[in-house]
Amino acid sequence: MTVELISVGTEILLGNIVNTNAAYLAEKCALLGLSCYYQSVVGDNEKRLRQTVELALSRSDIIILSGGLGPTKDDLTKEVTAEVFGRKLYEDAHSKERIVEFFRQMKSKKITENNWKQAMVPEGAIVVDNHNGTAPGLILEGENKTAILLPGPPNELKPMFEEAIAPYLGRLQPEGIYSKMVKLCGIGESKAETMISDLMDAQSNPTLAPYAKTGEVHLRVTAKAESEKKAEQLMAPMLKELYNRFGSMVFTEEEEVTLEEAVAALLEKKGLTVTTAESCTGGKLAGRIMNVPGVSRVYKEGYITYSNEAKRKLLGVKEETLKAYGAVSRQTAEEMAAGAAEAAGADAALGVTGIAGPDGGTEEKPVGLVYIGCFVKGHIRVEEFYFTGNREKIRDYAAVRALTLLREELLSYA
Amino acid sequence: MTVELISVGTEILLGNIVNTNAAYLAEKCALLGLSCYYQSVVGDNEKRLRQTVELALSRSDIIILSGGLGPTKDDLTKEVTAEVFGRKLYEDAHSKERIVEFFRQMKSKKITENNWKQAMVPEGAIVVDNHNGTAPGLILEGENKTAILLPGPPNELKPMFEEAIAPYLGRLQPEGIYSKMVKLCGIGESKAETMISDLMDAQSNPTLAPYAKTGEVHLRVTAKAESEKKAEQLMAPMLKELYNRFGSMVFTEEEEVTLEEAVAALLEKKGLTVTTAESCTGGKLAGRIMNVPGVSRVYKEGYITYSNEAKRKLLGVKEETLKAYGAVSRQTAEEMAAGAAEAAGADAALGVTGIAGPDGGTEEKPVGLVYIGCFVKGHIRVEEFYFTGNREKIRDYAAVRALTLLREELLSYA
Repeated sequence: MTVELISVGTEILLGNIVNTNAAYLAEKCALLGLSCYYQSVVGDNEKRLRQTVELALSRSDIIILSGGLGPTKDDLTKEVTAEVFGRKLYEDAHSKERIVEFFRQMKSKKITENNWKQAMVPEGAIVVDNHNGTAPGLILEGENKTAILLPGPPNELKPMFEEAIAPYLGRLQPEGIYSKMVKLCGIGESKAETMISDLMDAQSNPTLAPYAKTGEVHLRVTAKAESEKKAEQLMAPMLKELYNRFGSMVFTEEEEVTLEEAVAALLEKKGLTVTTAESCTGGKLAGRIMNVPGVSRVYKEGYITYSNEAKRKLLGVKEETLKAYGAVSRQTAEEMAAGAAEAAGADAALGVTGIAGPDGGTEEKPVGLVYIGCFVKGHIRVEEFYFTGNREKIRDYAAVRALTLLREELLSYA
Repeated sequence: MTVELISVGTEILLGNIVNTNAAYLAEKCALLGLSCYYQSVVGDNEKRLRQTVELALSRSDIIILSGGLGPTKDDLTKEVTAEVFGRKLYEDAHSKERIVEFFRQMKSKKITENNWKQAMVPEGAIVVDNHNGTAPGLILEGENKTAILLPGPPNELKPMFEEAIAPYLGRLQPEGIYSKMVKLCGIGESKAETMISDLMDAQSNPTLAPYAKTGEVHLRVTAKAESEKKAEQLMAPMLKELYNRFGSMVFTEEEEVTLEEAVAALLEKKGLTVTTAESCTGGKLAGRIMNVPGVSRVYKEGYITYSNEAKRKLLGVKEETLKAYGAVSRQTAEEMAAGAAEAAGADAALGVTGIAGPDGGTEEKPVGLVYIGCFVKGHIRVEEFYFTGNREKIRDYAAVRALTLLREELLSYA
């Protein structure tokens, strides 16, 4: 069964707001086993809205419209959709009562004439109560096409979808869609792609699709089945194969687990604490580690040492090292990591020093050159990287690579 | 002139990512004076992509496609669009060189066969260099229709649009569109909007449109005129009125200036250095300050003090203070700021402590409670905040508020 999303609103066309409703609805529909091949955005314009609704109905089983249910005359979603379905509007007593009740509760506000427009509903439509606003949701069932109309504000749309629309759509679905997200670190998108192109060609059930994130590659394995157990049986061989090919590069197969969470879990498992000493990343690395709830068990303190003096004072990097090799060097990264571990009394430490640009690059040490030192229980490894991109991207890459390096060292630490 | 946006990517259809590219492009196109009536999202499917491209070309002058330019076989945007325009693909020597150069810089990575796919370009297309990735941008000019193809990753798409596409589109426009972005901090979106609703209703030339960012409100003033000088004359009264209404909440009227840049500039102007002591934000604040090129002149070092011990050891927060008031308290925030300034020998310091959640909240100290201490040359101010949202959102808000607080204190510092 296919679904198509239509977001109605000039503010989206102008870029005043990001269309988070579409992402929310798309994810929910995918989880309900509905295939979504198109999303579109159109303004509060009768002609263009009708064209968009008619096109969507011509190619999808279910269309979900959001926005344009407000009380003003340029809110047209209900009127246009009803017309396409050949339904007249009538005043729904129940909806009118709810509007009165809503305003009674919001003592501050007064009902204006145009509010009654929101009590008008298409003949034969299923009216869905809105517990957070005055515009009811509507379900129009045609002969073999269905239109679902939802209010635009996310705090009205989301609860309404959870409470009424998801159950309604669930009843239409024979099969569910289940998926795993196999996440890789320490490998580029292209390389990962070439390693799975044969599996991707075998697009059937389950399917395999790659997503590139900064410094990571995510592989989504999706199966259609009548039960989660059946789906897991379908996905098992594909997952096994991915582990065979990528081995320890796989840091999770769970949608919601991040790289920093995987690293933090590894630290807890090994009973180790970690600290960070950052120059060019300047807090970005620590900031990511700190995204992990409960991370205080493994991370106590960290240092941002941008100046040479800070590197000496806080981390004990030697004057001679800075003089002989410079602040951006393998030796400095090594002393930063070791010094941070000692200063924090931590079992492990990451030291990051590099040239994030846009200035400060030289022929010998170009912008993008980053050294990352990783200390784990007395053993130190330093890696050299050349990242491309702007200042922010170079710093983002450095943070991900540091986490990846730490993970590798933790895995090899008995 | 009309423009239409087509985002290509299964990850958007599945709701894996929010379509921020569309919001970015929509805002930029509106700014360029282009009318956008439709946006659509389609997956990496040849048939559906072709239908979408053909429909868009039938109703809009310019179409901008983003995504699907990757090296993998399911990246089809270039192939399909070229076919619709009746253009063959050939290997572009310049693009091939750039790919080689890109990988030479990223010494850690190796070129794989499929990377060469990205050097194939349609006959007669304008090739736009990608400084942050391997997929070049492309401009296909038909008889009266134009297609612009951009890479999907925002950190590749945005710089490319700024550098090459915006100027290209600008040249297609008869009259110039000029704008200022008046950026506010320390005020909520709805409050700001109510304060300018009268100015927004007077939508003519210049126009005024609000954009909400995390912890900031941006007000775009846009004027149509034949010259920049004329535009500035048109915008002057509106800008003056905005300064009258928002006063020191305005931190810039330049598009590209960020809050951290405004704060860093203020520090340089006053000849002051700053440091940071972060508990709940854990590096996010320092990470933002470090986004500013050349910030090393005002920022030398910072501390991430997640544990009580770290707060004592690195910042000299008193044992009794932590005992009596707790780590998340006005008093601790104050001692963190003062202690950080002393430890770093800095003129100013920010101390941030709070409960980012999801756990750790209590009746008395709920998740979202954050104290921010700001020290400037011996004077200390502490503010209490109650932020809503998930762990990451709370930490983002805290970082922005800290920058805002520092800015206010610097402004009042003679």
